[in-house]
Amino acid sequence: MTDMKGFFYPRTASGRSSLIPSPPWYYSGDLLTVEYRTDPTRVADLLPAPLGLVQDDPGAVALIWADWQSCSASREELLDPVRSQYKEAFVVVRCSLEGRTYSRCVFIWVDKDFAIGRGVHQGYPKKLGSMWQTRPHPFPQGAPQIGPGGVFGATLAAGDRRLAEAVLTLREESADNGFVNAHPMAHHRVLPGIARGAPDAFAELIESGATQFEAGPAWTGEVELRLFESPTEELALLRVHEIIGGYYRQVGVVWDGGRSLAVLTDGSASEDA
Amino acid sequence: MTDMKGFFYPRTASGRSSLIPSPPWYYSGDLLTVEYRTDPTRVADLLPAPLGLVQDDPGAVALIWADWQSCSASREELLDPVRSQYKEAFVVVRCSLEGRTYSRCVFIWVDKDFAIGRGVHQGYPKKLGSMWQTRPHPFPQGAPQIGPGGVFGATLAAGDRRLAEAVLTLREESADNGFVNAHPMAHHRVLPGIARGAPDAFAELIESGATQFEAGPAWTGEVELRLFESPTEELALLRVHEIIGGYYRQVGVVWDGGRSLAVLTDGSASEDA
Amino acid sequence: MTDMKGFFYPRTASGRSSLIPSPPWYYSGDLLTVEYRTDPTRVADLLPAPLGLVQDDPGAVALIWADWQSCSASREELLDPVRSQYKEAFVVVRCSLEGRTYSRCVFIWVDKDFAIGRGVHQGYPKKLGSMWQTRPHPFPQGAPQIGPGGVFGATLAAGDRRLAEAVLTLREESADNGFVNAHPMAHHRVLPGIARGAPDAFAELIESGATQFEAGPAWTGEVELRLFESPTEELALLRVHEIIGGYYRQVGVVWDGGRSLAVLTDGSASEDA
Amino acid sequence: MTDMKGFFYPRTASGRSSLIPSPPWYYSGDLLTVEYRTDPTRVADLLPAPLGLVQDDPGAVALIWADWQSCSASREELLDPVRSQYKEAFVVVRCSLEGRTYSRCVFIWVDKDFAIGRGVHQGYPKKLGSMWQTRPHPFPQGAPQIGPGGVFGATLAAGDRRLAEAVLTLREESADNGFVNAHPMAHHRVLPGIARGAPDAFAELIESGATQFEAGPAWTGEVELRLFESPTEELALLRVHEIIGGYYRQVGVVWDGGRSLAVLTDGSASEDA
Repeated sequence: MTDMKGFFYPRTASGRSSLIPSPPWYYSGDLLTVEYRTDPTRVADLLPAPLGLVQDDPGAVALIWADWQSCSASREELLDPVRSQYKEAFVVVRCSLEGRTYSRCVFIWVDKDFAIGRGVHQGYPKKLGSMWQTRPHPFPQGAPQIGPGGVFGATLAAGDRRLAEAVLTLREESADNGFVNAHPMAHHRVLPGIARGAPDAFAELIESGATQFEAGPAWTGEVELRLFESPTEELALLRVHEIIGGYYRQVGVVWDGGRSLAVLTDGSASEDA
Repeated sequence: MTDMKGFFYPRTASGRSSLIPSPPWYYSGDLLTVEYRTDPTRVADLLPAPLGLVQDDPGAVALIWADWQSCSASREELLDPVRSQYKEAFVVVRCSLEGRTYSRCVFIWVDKDFAIGRGVHQGYPKKLGSMWQTRPHPFPQGAPQIGPGGVFGATLAAGDRRLAEAVLTLREESADNGFVNAHPMAHHRVLPGIARGAPDAFAELIESGATQFEAGPAWTGEVELRLFESPTEELALLRVHEIIGGYYRQVGVVWDGGRSLAVLTDGSASEDA
Repeated sequence: MTDMKGFFYPRTASGRSSLIPSPPWYYSGDLLTVEYRTDPTRVADLLPAPLGLVQDDPGAVALIWADWQSCSASREELLDPVRSQYKEAFVVVRCSLEGRTYSRCVFIWVDKDFAIGRGVHQGYPKKLGSMWQTRPHPFPQGAPQIGPGGVFGATLAAGDRRLAEAVLTLREESADNGFVNAHPMAHHRVLPGIARGAPDAFAELIESGATQFEAGPAWTGEVELRLFESPTEELALLRVHEIIGGYYRQVGVVWDGGRSLAVLTDGSASEDA
Repeated sequence: MTDMKGFFYPRTASGRSSLIPSPPWYYSGDLLTVEYRTDPTRVADLLPAPLGLVQDDPGAVALIWADWQSCSASREELLDPVRSQYKEAFVVVRCSLEGRTYSRCVFIWVDKDFAIGRGVHQGYPKKLGSMWQTRPHPFPQGAPQIGPGGVFGATLAAGDRRLAEAVLTLREESADNGFVNAHPMAHHRVLPGIARGAPDAFAELIESGATQFEAGPAWTGEVELRLFESPTEELALLRVHEIIGGYYRQVGVVWDGGRSLAVLTDGSASEDA
């Protein structure tokens, strides 16, 4: 019998078909971040035990657009860029676990299957969406530049409905790129039991973050954000009570695994709707 | 702390955001099937232990296109059909486990995220692709009809490369719709360990099949099949040595879970490439 | 010098690259039609002179979804169905010209480039959109059937915004499939002048319709329709004052050209915004 | 009767629905150019009279990928970037007309409808395609940089088939960005007659070019190019006999109309296939 190779499915004798390569994974991209306050009860609605609200500013939310190019250690995906470019928008909140503060991605949309596969591995709950964000360019005819007065738009749609749109006008450099997505991520990885009505077959709480992180200056300025209803999404429940800030930053990241915090074997972390 | 609801990610207080609803799942669709023989060694390359080749016709392969409309018990997805229609193409082989014969999907491409999510649950190794198959219609101006002389084309592409194309010309009704995809499915569900280089965190061998299955007559006839190379796919390694047959059939299916055959806790089912 | 061939661009020595083949064009498909009344002034806003409102029910509008498979006389597109299947949604009003009543498509969205090319030829003002309509199927697990109680949804989106959605519940057969899209089409074909600020280089009023038309029974029933705003569309200005009816019908059509009613050489038919 | 507004279709009382705004149009983007020599007879196959081959290097071809962000004078599209970003790949040759040398786009693929609409106006024979080109980024984790050793890939697909792929490795700055796409464009704008078998209703030869053009340094280096067959395309007929060079350059462009060289009223410029 053949030994199977490949980091992810489909596993084969060669491993060549795997939807995603083995980490480390390398990323270069631009982040447009909007931070705002919502009702902390709505954040608590997204935190399964044993995760809890943080004490300081518990209703803070970050909605982040990212325009990425990414690759494996071989860098071969960069030469066939349908395999390396993708866009995403994701919602991050903070949570508390045994006295530590974590960031947690509660909703995320991407536009490539390899990004979905990475999400299954990393515990990002990825769906397909259509994301667009204005790109800076050295020539201003059809583009803003990263600097005072630069105006950047960003939109998110899924299921043929617009879910969010933002406009950020840069004013000045900022000491940080916001504070909500600034902690290690605490994510669940869950597989429902295969038998009808069974508890989860596997549920794990993991922690991960970037192995390497480089970034240009963060820019901040005025930002507007609108969220829209959808029958299949709950983003609009995180109603915007107060804008905290908007940020634009170019970054380079390496991700190379995380660590398991707990394997929840009794299925108690979930209760089917 | 809130109890989380939702069959799949993202789990929330309401469960409304789940990428996929709880089973049962309901399907109506058209299947275009091409069965052929390849080198059995190439089939063995896709069967992890303890699965083995079947003794009778071990190199038989089915490449199946399906044009689906599907929904949950609520049927609400049918009224917002971006959430219910999808297309797929998938490759099935047979394997032997403890004296029983199973079918096994070794490669599959779909065009919607909810279909990917179902695949993670059911052990189908789904990627995104672009699939097209000729549709029958009561009026012949721009369509064949399911009957003698009806000609149906089917194509599969992924990563902006064409991977397969088939043309089936119907001749007569057939006693069956082929034999390769006729057994319960034996699939693996695997989550790699989150730590760099770690063994799989979870690996399970499951069995599943339709709870309910209705079908119209199967039609057969002449069929041509061409497979094409891609750096990220291994479909073309399953070279066509001999065509067995081509089939067209309309079906209605209900899927409502499966059963776990084995949970492989030591990670031995895989070896990273 | 080479003679160029090809019905449409790009023209080459062989004609093989033409975005669209020479007519006749053959279609099989399903139509979901919603007819309603809006303010006739809004219809008049879409009728350039010499077209005028009809006297009888001048505010009647048809919003039609169509799920097509189409081909040229060679039928080769049917075997490579990415080249033959497309979906569309379009808005039709009636107008009067020299005492005759015409139908006129005022807005239309499609999802393939060959459909856009046909529109440039036929005077349909086609944009890209994302259209979905529930499909009937012989097996009811995931599909309605064309008959009493069959429920069909339809949606339209463009620019990552939903523009319209309808739900039609069939009750009984109908003597007709509505009356708004029942006349020959009167369309303009216009090319703006290439010089900045120049009048139109070409403007022609044409008439066309199906050369051959076959259809199954029209079904009617209860219908709901919702229209949504978009900064780049004016569909929602045709506000729904009163629903006239909803219809479902399967059809086969051949289109083989039309006739020129007038060539407007002075550019007076348009005035740039 | 209402006066109609809007630069392009659909024209309405407000002009808001027009697929494209009035020029001028503003662009910022990155160009990856591959120049090579093919058999001049194949170039002649694409030049309708009175255009002829140039004497100097008549078989020179440029295949250009462009990653654009574009907008109208209002710049509003930049804030809803689904309306401003698009990618394209296009093939340019040179031709001679009355002693002058022109560039001419003979094949082009884009991924947005507004780009198709602009093409109808400007005489670019645009189809839909899927184009990807590696993006430079300040952080190297997942991106090359524009400088020595920077490696850029580019691919083109249409109809679910890959048509071309290139890899460019930068070595040094270049005095130019190639010579094939360096002249004013000579394009045809053609509308076939609406009656079956009729000659063209309108055929015009126009000249246009950028009103404003800014550019960074052009970089050159080693380049590989592969072209692939398709039943609906003739790109691969322009076989690569010899690579001339590869170039990368960032540019800003304004386009604001052109001028008519000839209106061909007798339809003699084309002969249907």
